[in-house]
Amino acid sequence: MTDVGDTERRARAALTRIAEPGDETVGRWLRQMGPVELLRALKGERDAPEGACEQKFAGLRLRAARQDTAADLAAVAAIGGRFLCPGDEEWPGQLDDLGDGRPIGLWVRGPANLRLWALRSVAVVGARACTDYGAHMAAVLGAGLADRGWTVVSGAAYGVDGATHRGALAADGATIAVLASGVDFAYPRGHTELIGRMAEQGLVIAELPPGDHPTRSRFILRNRVIAALTRGTVVVEAELRSGSLVTARRAMELGRFTMGMPGPVTSGLSAGVHQLLRGGATVVTDAAEVVELVGSIGELAPERRGPLLARDLLDPVAARVLEALPARGGADARQVARDSGTVGDVAQGKLFELQSLGFVQRSGGRWELVRTATATAGSR
Amino acid sequence: MTDVGDTERRARAALTRIAEPGDETVGRWLRQMGPVELLRALKGERDAPEGACEQKFAGLRLRAARQDTAADLAAVAAIGGRFLCPGDEEWPGQLDDLGDGRPIGLWVRGPANLRLWALRSVAVVGARACTDYGAHMAAVLGAGLADRGWTVVSGAAYGVDGATHRGALAADGATIAVLASGVDFAYPRGHTELIGRMAEQGLVIAELPPGDHPTRSRFILRNRVIAALTRGTVVVEAELRSGSLVTARRAMELGRFTMGMPGPVTSGLSAGVHQLLRGGATVVTDAAEVVELVGSIGELAPERRGPLLARDLLDPVAARVLEALPARGGADARQVARDSGTVGDVAQGKLFELQSLGFVQRSGGRWELVRTATATAGSR
Repeated sequence: MTDVGDTERRARAALTRIAEPGDETVGRWLRQMGPVELLRALKGERDAPEGACEQKFAGLRLRAARQDTAADLAAVAAIGGRFLCPGDEEWPGQLDDLGDGRPIGLWVRGPANLRLWALRSVAVVGARACTDYGAHMAAVLGAGLADRGWTVVSGAAYGVDGATHRGALAADGATIAVLASGVDFAYPRGHTELIGRMAEQGLVIAELPPGDHPTRSRFILRNRVIAALTRGTVVVEAELRSGSLVTARRAMELGRFTMGMPGPVTSGLSAGVHQLLRGGATVVTDAAEVVELVGSIGELAPERRGPLLARDLLDPVAARVLEALPARGGADARQVARDSGTVGDVAQGKLFELQSLGFVQRSGGRWELVRTATATAGSR
Repeated sequence: MTDVGDTERRARAALTRIAEPGDETVGRWLRQMGPVELLRALKGERDAPEGACEQKFAGLRLRAARQDTAADLAAVAAIGGRFLCPGDEEWPGQLDDLGDGRPIGLWVRGPANLRLWALRSVAVVGARACTDYGAHMAAVLGAGLADRGWTVVSGAAYGVDGATHRGALAADGATIAVLASGVDFAYPRGHTELIGRMAEQGLVIAELPPGDHPTRSRFILRNRVIAALTRGTVVVEAELRSGSLVTARRAMELGRFTMGMPGPVTSGLSAGVHQLLRGGATVVTDAAEVVELVGSIGELAPERRGPLLARDLLDPVAARVLEALPARGGADARQVARDSGTVGDVAQGKLFELQSLGFVQRSGGRWELVRTATATAGSR
């Protein structure tokens, strides 16, 4: 798969500044006209799409006149980030399930390959004002999923989200924060350090361009990306009518696994979870049960038929990391980093990518070669 | 429906002293030969059933030689109890779902009509060594079900069982204890007063004859009666591999509703409940949700087509209690007792019976006439 051309990429980057995330009308125009022509229309260089609401289109044109794509791309490059488009090798194809609500593009920080990490990912979401119980369970779940080689996705908020990311990071895991602001705009402010650490050790992604602020509707629309990106969503604590339930219900609509971690029925913060469970979500009490469910398709599928990519098509760093794994037994990420001559975070990121490609697997925090991998490499 | 004859009743009473509860071989003989002939065979007055295991039959004969039915019937009569058989008007027909494992008969203490009470009943079971959370939830559930006019069935054990019964009693509710010993043998000893109170205000039933002791296997076999008697079983707290889960799984096999009240996943006493929920039981968090589920057949069925019995076929006390209800609005049980000239416990027992018959309903602890009742009485 070749990446999209520069003109289209710049047009999409511009459109993320002009349109709000998840605007399905803009999504339809985008599908009908393509990003370059849509941007021209918004700049007044050609006619508006047929039947477009004049008032809405005028509003978008005002934004189009003010945006500066070169500056946005420079800003994200300055912090080591990038802008991904549908069609890029690194684009997670499962986002297409959102139809015309698919993100126009994604602003990304972090060393890992988003597509490969997201292939084996689970979302863990929940209340901001969670209890100690919720925070504890989120951290344990984040660590347990990471130990089993699953990427942990959440929204970097206070409470359950933050505890989940921290649990995954503490277990040297792969974790992705999906923000409702620009990737350079740490929100909440108190999570500046956490989000910064994820940009180094994990991935931080957003639909909104650099510098953009979160709003109430952006939080809600961000949830659809969390739901669509992952194989399933676990809600740890949630009040009735909470945003986490929106994510979970969206996951259900998208055919993803929807799970809830029960709690005391005397706790209002578990009431939303119990409501979800009564509506058909699955009770899970630990990471093993989550993996048992989400892995029922995914865990087996790619590995069983061998790696998805020939070994000699791997990028040089990934190839070196793969070489560093012992033929028998496992190794931890630090050992692999040393033996492959890479820094720890890079080795770890590559190991999770290699796992999605079917070359390696993680078990109890250690990495090992998948038995059939070398035999069938390149058989695809 | 006429009650069974005296000879058959005495034969069945004798057989409860001879066979262990739930013995399906004895159940098959009983079905093939009838109780009178089976008792004769066991007394050596005729041949053993064809193909009967000699050793087993010899063991039963030893017990048959030693039993004294007249004494057993006198003992239960002395404490105001009775012995019910399949075929009696008061026999709960749903026990037939146990097939050859159906109780031979039931020893009963308490003023209420077992069949009518059991028609609208739910079992609440759980750990003996429950937590404060479990005890609290069991009591709240017992009271909530009673307030909604449902009979609460449990096993009179320490912990969840006891809390459930107490909750129902405190709400002036209908509650049935199913013992794994004789109805005059209070087990556990610490629940002597509770069981005694239930024999006055509720019902205490057992398959075992007066004076018989509980054993481990009798506890397990008792659970099938709890499961079969009720519309559904709620497990409040249970460890993995606990007896409460046996009851719940039995309920599931019998096509009854199976429910679990979740708790913290950090609690070993909720682990069994969560396992049950993962196996297909329904999450419930309060009495309203239980009634919503078990009432989905039952709550609507008899009431909607009017009373099950013509008003002039009611027994005189029930008729007086029904007369005492105001034409508009509700009354509490004490008021009804006063106006009908009966004692409180009797009035209350009759009100629950009248509810099963479709004449009255309980809402928020108060009793009122069912609107359609008078119009359609006798239409059956």
